[in-house]
Amino acid sequence: MITEYTTQQSDQKFIKGFSKLSKKQKIELISKYFKNPAYAIEILKRYHHEDADTQKLFDEFSENTLSNFYFPFGVAPNFVINHKNYVIPMVIEESSVVAAASSSAKFWSDRGGFRSMVLSTTKIGQVHFSWKGHREKLEKVMPRLKEELIAGSDHITINMNRRGGGIREIELVDMTSYMENYYQLKVNFETVDSMGANFINSCLEEFASILKTFIANHELFNDDEKDISIIMAILSNYTPDCLVRAEVECDITEFDGIDAAMDGHEFAWKFDRAVRIAQIDPHRATTHNKGIFNGIDSVALATGNDFRAIEASGHTYASRNGKYSSLTEVSINGNTFNYSLEVPLAVGTIGGLTSLHPLAKLSLELLGNPDAKELMTIMASVGLANNFGALKSLVTKGIQHGHMKMHLLNILNHFGATEEEKKEAVHYFADKKVSFARVAEYVANKRK
Amino acid sequence: MITEYTTQQSDQKFIKGFSKLSKKQKIELISKYFKNPAYAIEILKRYHHEDADTQKLFDEFSENTLSNFYFPFGVAPNFVINHKNYVIPMVIEESSVVAAASSSAKFWSDRGGFRSMVLSTTKIGQVHFSWKGHREKLEKVMPRLKEELIAGSDHITINMNRRGGGIREIELVDMTSYMENYYQLKVNFETVDSMGANFINSCLEEFASILKTFIANHELFNDDEKDISIIMAILSNYTPDCLVRAEVECDITEFDGIDAAMDGHEFAWKFDRAVRIAQIDPHRATTHNKGIFNGIDSVALATGNDFRAIEASGHTYASRNGKYSSLTEVSINGNTFNYSLEVPLAVGTIGGLTSLHPLAKLSLELLGNPDAKELMTIMASVGLANNFGALKSLVTKGIQHGHMKMHLLNILNHFGATEEEKKEAVHYFADKKVSFARVAEYVANKRK
Repeated sequence: MITEYTTQQSDQKFIKGFSKLSKKQKIELISKYFKNPAYAIEILKRYHHEDADTQKLFDEFSENTLSNFYFPFGVAPNFVINHKNYVIPMVIEESSVVAAASSSAKFWSDRGGFRSMVLSTTKIGQVHFSWKGHREKLEKVMPRLKEELIAGSDHITINMNRRGGGIREIELVDMTSYMENYYQLKVNFETVDSMGANFINSCLEEFASILKTFIANHELFNDDEKDISIIMAILSNYTPDCLVRAEVECDITEFDGIDAAMDGHEFAWKFDRAVRIAQIDPHRATTHNKGIFNGIDSVALATGNDFRAIEASGHTYASRNGKYSSLTEVSINGNTFNYSLEVPLAVGTIGGLTSLHPLAKLSLELLGNPDAKELMTIMASVGLANNFGALKSLVTKGIQHGHMKMHLLNILNHFGATEEEKKEAVHYFADKKVSFARVAEYVANKRK
Repeated sequence: MITEYTTQQSDQKFIKGFSKLSKKQKIELISKYFKNPAYAIEILKRYHHEDADTQKLFDEFSENTLSNFYFPFGVAPNFVINHKNYVIPMVIEESSVVAAASSSAKFWSDRGGFRSMVLSTTKIGQVHFSWKGHREKLEKVMPRLKEELIAGSDHITINMNRRGGGIREIELVDMTSYMENYYQLKVNFETVDSMGANFINSCLEEFASILKTFIANHELFNDDEKDISIIMAILSNYTPDCLVRAEVECDITEFDGIDAAMDGHEFAWKFDRAVRIAQIDPHRATTHNKGIFNGIDSVALATGNDFRAIEASGHTYASRNGKYSSLTEVSINGNTFNYSLEVPLAVGTIGGLTSLHPLAKLSLELLGNPDAKELMTIMASVGLANNFGALKSLVTKGIQHGHMKMHLLNILNHFGATEEEKKEAVHYFADKKVSFARVAEYVANKRK
């Protein structure tokens, strides 16, 4: 089998039919791209699961899979959300995220925990089309068209309807003031416990096909008007109406002792300033919200949800008022401190990878097999916890204090430190600033 | 050791000192949260690496780690970027992402490949502070303060300076029109081949401490003015000046044959419309950009980079003109079709997990051990490739055609299909629409 070829144009090697090769063949072919092919093969194989069936499962999640990329699967205990106790599964490569979530969870579990409520659960999809004609005619046929769209997508919606979801609303949107001849069918969906991407896209593609036939056959339209061009039919990952709120609340004096250098009132004042800064300055808002998604994405990864969809929606939501801004808000009334997050979260607890990935399934079990709404409240609470933890560090000791300590072990591993050396180093750096240069120097001195 | 306790408040079990427990103890304790503790323990242990030292490495990446969460490590071959051939490592759970990247790469490798250039590499950090006094006085002492900031952070910057990076600019920003007494030191950094978060944060925290001392001791300030309050010192994940551009270009006739139902001109027209829609409508823009980050994040995960930072920066950038919009742009001049992406990417090829995670290290080797700038060009090109692939599907056959086919194997796995059954099913569904219900029905019939 010829799998590599060159072209006249570029004189470069291309690989032909790669996806059709066996995994073994793929690994062998790719190994040639390394200085030491045998070593590359060894590394790729080292992370294969010993059980062939188990490995096959992971191989089939994607295409051209050569190995498994390990991420640490950890837990943050002691979360109280709506008076219920959770141990939160988190998958994340950043060393301080689980620690920060755990520490915030502990703090708030002693102060009533997190309160969280789902505000709405609607998702949106659009059929974008180009059409030359009189808008009034389209509007006139809409009631009949809607009926046909709903009837014609019956075979797709039957299961979802049974589960209490389905198509909620179909609207014609005139976008011709933005671009000539541009219209949308804007559709609201309820997808209950599934994220619903496949369901929504299948409905919309069916709608596009029905729309085209409907217009072509309707007597109201003249020949020119019968020519409709479907640009695309696709769900929107922006889900401002699939929204959840999480909050914590306590008396300001409860912050006394949170830091040796300040009392509760000073802490609350600084915290409030820090949040207001994130509302004012997009440079700060980006980092502020990034800390929220550290938590949310960790749970998304652990439960087999699509973090790119979550990120895209959340950040667009953060920019909805024309200036990218904080997703959280402080309010201080008298001595009561309230901190809240509002974030769109389109997630699922069935479908997709949620039950196919063994550890995603385990994660959901650990959470008590929540429905999608409960998972929204959990994720929002974890996001708020991580953000609270980050701000707490920032307005007191600074972020590096905790962060670098967590990173110390990683740096020590870089130098191949033994268990004994690690223990000594952790002790040594307990009251010192950690930097790569300082740890390097420390290790070098120790090993002299 | 007492590790669980209840509180009067909530009557709920809390776990005390969890992080101090051994991994074995943690797993045993957590297993009690499952209906079948023995099964939970078995699943968590099933994904441990057999080599204890290797496992320890992954355990120490984060806190409270119980197991490894596997993500498929795959590759997309045949990328030509700036006339260089790459096999791209991608880590992603979404089945169609690697396939879409590979298919776009193949298409463009025959048409000159991707061109990509780094436009800028500056990162920003801020010391946010509250200060009551005359701004003119602050401005007056800035030259001297800058000198002290730079001299005083010498021990942090020495290595970075040696590598060609360091502090580039320090600016006083008056933010009092947004919030009373609010000022910033806004600092530009060059961090060369490291993402630089720890470096920047360490510098900024040192700056905060120097600033405080400087103001308190400077004769120009009266007693009231000596009272400065540092709110926080932290890098910004928003990096509009760490920017990369990627583009592809071809003659429109090159699109002839890309789809059986349309010629190259119709394809280009539809594609152009689709991109303009993403520029007009935030609902579409979110999904459009999400497809870009499918590609970028896959490479970020594979190379040990922080995808939350990348997402946050990219989406804020997409909203910079007051309305969330597309990151890509089409231009058609005569018969020449040009498609480009501009995206901020603050990434590293040294530091962090890049060399600590064995597969991140392998990924970078597969890419030829690029520096950070080259990695920016690679990621941007992969992002553009994934976006092109998504739009190509959307404006031709629709996204579900390819997507559901990829998903078919996952659904079959859900029903525990054998290899034989899978082969038959793939054949059967080759010309049919795939839906969960239809596959369920198919499997049920087959097994009657």
